[in-house]
Amino acid sequence: MPVSADVLDALRHVTTATCTTVLLKKGLRNTWVRGAVPIAPGQPRTVGPAFTLRFVPYREDLAGPQSWSSPRSTRACVEAMPAGAMVVIDAMGDRQAGVFGDILCQRMVARGVAGMATDGVVRDSALVAATGLATWCAGRAGPPAVAAMHFAGWGEVVACGGVCVMPDDVIVADDDGAVVIPADLAETVATEGTAQEDLEEWIMEEVRQGAGLPGLYPPNEETLARYRAKRGG
Amino acid sequence: MPVSADVLDALRHVTTATCTTVLLKKGLRNTWVRGAVPIAPGQPRTVGPAFTLRFVPYREDLAGPQSWSSPRSTRACVEAMPAGAMVVIDAMGDRQAGVFGDILCQRMVARGVAGMATDGVVRDSALVAATGLATWCAGRAGPPAVAAMHFAGWGEVVACGGVCVMPDDVIVADDDGAVVIPADLAETVATEGTAQEDLEEWIMEEVRQGAGLPGLYPPNEETLARYRAKRGG
Amino acid sequence: MPVSADVLDALRHVTTATCTTVLLKKGLRNTWVRGAVPIAPGQPRTVGPAFTLRFVPYREDLAGPQSWSSPRSTRACVEAMPAGAMVVIDAMGDRQAGVFGDILCQRMVARGVAGMATDGVVRDSALVAATGLATWCAGRAGPPAVAAMHFAGWGEVVACGGVCVMPDDVIVADDDGAVVIPADLAETVATEGTAQEDLEEWIMEEVRQGAGLPGLYPPNEETLARYRAKRGG
Amino acid sequence: MPVSADVLDALRHVTTATCTTVLLKKGLRNTWVRGAVPIAPGQPRTVGPAFTLRFVPYREDLAGPQSWSSPRSTRACVEAMPAGAMVVIDAMGDRQAGVFGDILCQRMVARGVAGMATDGVVRDSALVAATGLATWCAGRAGPPAVAAMHFAGWGEVVACGGVCVMPDDVIVADDDGAVVIPADLAETVATEGTAQEDLEEWIMEEVRQGAGLPGLYPPNEETLARYRAKRGG
Amino acid sequence: MPVSADVLDALRHVTTATCTTVLLKKGLRNTWVRGAVPIAPGQPRTVGPAFTLRFVPYREDLAGPQSWSSPRSTRACVEAMPAGAMVVIDAMGDRQAGVFGDILCQRMVARGVAGMATDGVVRDSALVAATGLATWCAGRAGPPAVAAMHFAGWGEVVACGGVCVMPDDVIVADDDGAVVIPADLAETVATEGTAQEDLEEWIMEEVRQGAGLPGLYPPNEETLARYRAKRGG
Amino acid sequence: MPVSADVLDALRHVTTATCTTVLLKKGLRNTWVRGAVPIAPGQPRTVGPAFTLRFVPYREDLAGPQSWSSPRSTRACVEAMPAGAMVVIDAMGDRQAGVFGDILCQRMVARGVAGMATDGVVRDSALVAATGLATWCAGRAGPPAVAAMHFAGWGEVVACGGVCVMPDDVIVADDDGAVVIPADLAETVATEGTAQEDLEEWIMEEVRQGAGLPGLYPPNEETLARYRAKRGG
Repeated sequence: MPVSADVLDALRHVTTATCTTVLLKKGLRNTWVRGAVPIAPGQPRTVGPAFTLRFVPYREDLAGPQSWSSPRSTRACVEAMPAGAMVVIDAMGDRQAGVFGDILCQRMVARGVAGMATDGVVRDSALVAATGLATWCAGRAGPPAVAAMHFAGWGEVVACGGVCVMPDDVIVADDDGAVVIPADLAETVATEGTAQEDLEEWIMEEVRQGAGLPGLYPPNEETLARYRAKRGG
Repeated sequence: MPVSADVLDALRHVTTATCTTVLLKKGLRNTWVRGAVPIAPGQPRTVGPAFTLRFVPYREDLAGPQSWSSPRSTRACVEAMPAGAMVVIDAMGDRQAGVFGDILCQRMVARGVAGMATDGVVRDSALVAATGLATWCAGRAGPPAVAAMHFAGWGEVVACGGVCVMPDDVIVADDDGAVVIPADLAETVATEGTAQEDLEEWIMEEVRQGAGLPGLYPPNEETLARYRAKRGG
Repeated sequence: MPVSADVLDALRHVTTATCTTVLLKKGLRNTWVRGAVPIAPGQPRTVGPAFTLRFVPYREDLAGPQSWSSPRSTRACVEAMPAGAMVVIDAMGDRQAGVFGDILCQRMVARGVAGMATDGVVRDSALVAATGLATWCAGRAGPPAVAAMHFAGWGEVVACGGVCVMPDDVIVADDDGAVVIPADLAETVATEGTAQEDLEEWIMEEVRQGAGLPGLYPPNEETLARYRAKRGG
Repeated sequence: MPVSADVLDALRHVTTATCTTVLLKKGLRNTWVRGAVPIAPGQPRTVGPAFTLRFVPYREDLAGPQSWSSPRSTRACVEAMPAGAMVVIDAMGDRQAGVFGDILCQRMVARGVAGMATDGVVRDSALVAATGLATWCAGRAGPPAVAAMHFAGWGEVVACGGVCVMPDDVIVADDDGAVVIPADLAETVATEGTAQEDLEEWIMEEVRQGAGLPGLYPPNEETLARYRAKRGG
Repeated sequence: MPVSADVLDALRHVTTATCTTVLLKKGLRNTWVRGAVPIAPGQPRTVGPAFTLRFVPYREDLAGPQSWSSPRSTRACVEAMPAGAMVVIDAMGDRQAGVFGDILCQRMVARGVAGMATDGVVRDSALVAATGLATWCAGRAGPPAVAAMHFAGWGEVVACGGVCVMPDDVIVADDDGAVVIPADLAETVATEGTAQEDLEEWIMEEVRQGAGLPGLYPPNEETLARYRAKRGG
Repeated sequence: MPVSADVLDALRHVTTATCTTVLLKKGLRNTWVRGAVPIAPGQPRTVGPAFTLRFVPYREDLAGPQSWSSPRSTRACVEAMPAGAMVVIDAMGDRQAGVFGDILCQRMVARGVAGMATDGVVRDSALVAATGLATWCAGRAGPPAVAAMHFAGWGEVVACGGVCVMPDDVIVADDDGAVVIPADLAETVATEGTAQEDLEEWIMEEVRQGAGLPGLYPPNEETLARYRAKRGG
């Protein structure tokens, strides 16, 4: 069952810091995409179900410009991307060749893709940023993907930045980077994360007023009572 | 079309050094599995069509002992391995957990598997060596695969040690490590490699007799004529 | 004996480039914190005696949200930080989890901490920047420290970015990054560094006017005489 | 409460592979010392409570031959090692200088130390091996520790090979490498590990007889019944 | 024969993304300088023949402030740099010490150097940026080059960011980073690159209008005919 | 002035551990070749003046089998190697392609080369070992050097395993690895190293007899007096 629009909406108000904290409390430590940072400052938090792509290392007989016309090409893959998806690209952390450039990104915008997260890099990076596609990546490089990678396909379980990503897991990405939320935990993270955001906002205000941390953060019973009184009262 | 038994037999007499040289002459530089070394000295050169497995990083809700009974487990995979295969395991180069231990290796021996090559490590390594399964790996570690990895499946194109491996590519492994030969180049490598081995053996003998390298290695026309006279005469 | 306020003040006018040059002349090559860069452009040069923290890798029985209430928690540690200190955090270079987030940083501001330098990363990074705490780190990540690390304590000799840091060593941090000055060398670096800054400013002006480097930089006796005449005259 | 001699004895019959599997079942994934391999083949499994040492990077004013006579030197530390201990050395994974050489190792043998495990390397390695001290390390190097490290002290919580080690945790080391068992889990690992070793030995025999893996490994109820009948009967 | 000014001019209008694509079509995959990114956003694309420098690791008896006055110093080297050159510095990827600071960069500007690309880092980075010298590097650090490196000389074939660079190869650097074009391929890259830029601009416009990728990118014969009609018509 | 045969002879009795200790006392920390280990156990300590080679990354238009016949090829280089030399190969630490194979090594043996040390790997490794050439390297790989590297030449200052090596520096290699001794320090290292070996042998004997370390190692005045009495008496 796909994650509901309501849950996705709620997650747009939960930071990746909070998402990872809630996931940790559920026993999941390894949900953070290493290496994926915002391509530009100020991108809004972006949320969507994962649409996965996978690359393997290049082999000269496979990875060349001729592969761009193959039915299993990145071009065909872009045409299969659903609106609202967060595209997740397993580039094996390779930073020598850009997985996507401006033309493909422009087409993704046209298709309504929500954003892109990869442990690899992009090319034509200034133009990619200009397309407005929300992008989390490990940097930029000139060479085309085929200079270093062979496209293996889409819609599979993949590795991205040291994390396992399954199709339809929920990706939340913001200034800190990107987190993978297993689909069946998304609602829990949305609910508990929203509550935690509210609590931490209140705690932050207390700290701004000069309160010390012991008993406040994490809150002890007395603090929680005070918080509930203020918020719920 | 699978690679013929004759070609596989011929490749058993061609070193990985020669295989990679012939592949380079055909324009393929990236065919060497980084990190896979013989688990024990003295293993014979081993050759077979690739049977591929793929791991992704662990996620606590997926990768635990319970996964061992899943229909998509490594156990089910072992039962699908054909006799004569070289099992190639994409462990993402992870050296913190052993992909396979002695029980699975013993079963692979029973099934007639030719050998195993991985960019990861094995566990119960002394017992693995005792099973007699020819093994190329990046070392050894105690923890089970599920401590660090989730098994994604088998029979796919995979990355192994920085190389693209497709099912039925031919793997040749010896003291130097392991090379991936694209299936449709296997016969060429067998033929040209055999010829090169013979030539180099003759050159080595010349060097042992005190000959200098210029004109000899690589051989100029005169040297080649001398070689042909000796060998073909 | 702690480093005097005068020396700290003087060091606020010496670049880290100059500090490391003076230290090199005293025989110290290894004083540069690898990986710590300014969290935001335009942070002023920040100087203070080191207050050290140390993390070790996580272990599930130790590193969890419950540890936040321990008497040896990062919370208790923040309450022990003296005004004016440069907080130095040994995160073993781990970039998978943020050592501190916005609430702790806000409290550090309230306590008058001068700044923070770490070979790790921060979380809630946009909010951390908003607290105004001068911060040098290796990037940002969503997960809480406990997802990857166990807090070992404070006030010890630590490793940070490949450098040994002792409590009360002086930290100078600016656009280039952060340098560790052993406490008993701080006065020397302040004095010689101030002189060198002045000399280099004069040399830079000469170069701007079109002078060539030989004899000028490094200055020979004649150049030094000219410099002294100009400055001292 | 220290771990009992009986538990230590029992663990001498449990492989590190089994120890890590039991720990994983208890929720601990991160217990494996990365980089520590046996210095020589054939070392017996070695078990003991951890005696921890910690190094930080060198600083020329601290780390020199003069430091060898300091009261906080590695020499003084060796004299504090109790008989039976497994010495665990946090060398920050540095492979450029040997933490210990033959003279210190010989003295450790004289003191009855059980063995040594480090994420660093040793020097005078042939002579170290000759002392008979059971050693797990990341290789060998000529330079003395002071060429790259400053000794910080002993008896603290340390990081070793990516794992948290507390004094008196139990270290088990064998052909696969070294595992850290939290002191309060040692008895559980000994008990459950012993049982698992027996079960796996029986399963291995079944596999040797030609049995397939499904239902056998991991064992289903029927298999377990058969096993119990055989062993317990 | 040096590359003509016309070719250099033409390359100023070809992105590094396009340069690497054309080079790939000619069989060259390894032309991308890993690690060199723009020191500041908005630097114009910079092109010039390579003037190469090479560093090796430091040795205390060679690499110290005294080396700055040597006839083989970086100072003498700067005075040998021709106007219009792209200075390429092999720093072995070392990020612990800045290859150049503001004074040397200011002098390079005075000499009319086009720009600088290195796999190392710079120091006095804010001041380097202020000189206006177009710079691609791997970051910034305070320590002087001699803290980590010994200057080996200039005008040789060097390694930079994993790429072979020969004197007078053409360097093109822009937002994505820097590419090395062998001198005898520069004209080809200029010609084919210019054509490709025009084609891709037209394709991008098509995509902006809503066109799908299959048949468009890469263009099939019909698309090419349409393009030619539009552009050539 | 080349290092004398007497000094080279004396160094054959000084371990690399002792050489690096003496060099450290002279202020040189960075003299250890990272990554170079003996290709086979039991190689005798090998000493000789450095004959340096340098590789840079491959470029398809330069690095191919055709380069083997170039006048600047590795073949021509082997013919220039003097008897007694320690060949030092800067392979940039690349482990994907073997710098040399059995034929070149056999020729080196014929020319009387003392040994070879590299931060790269060798190919045809079993055959290389069979030539009897004393070899220190970072492992083995099948592909020829040209698959990953372009040969830049010989007789230059090079980087090898993180160390600066100048032609005619003295290389000492043994079980622990390889150290670079600047030519003008070789005699000092031979003299002081010989003395230190004798002292440490005596200390080791004391430890074997049960002596504790304080006062013994490092020796205080009383210990030194006892030592001198024993040895000099």
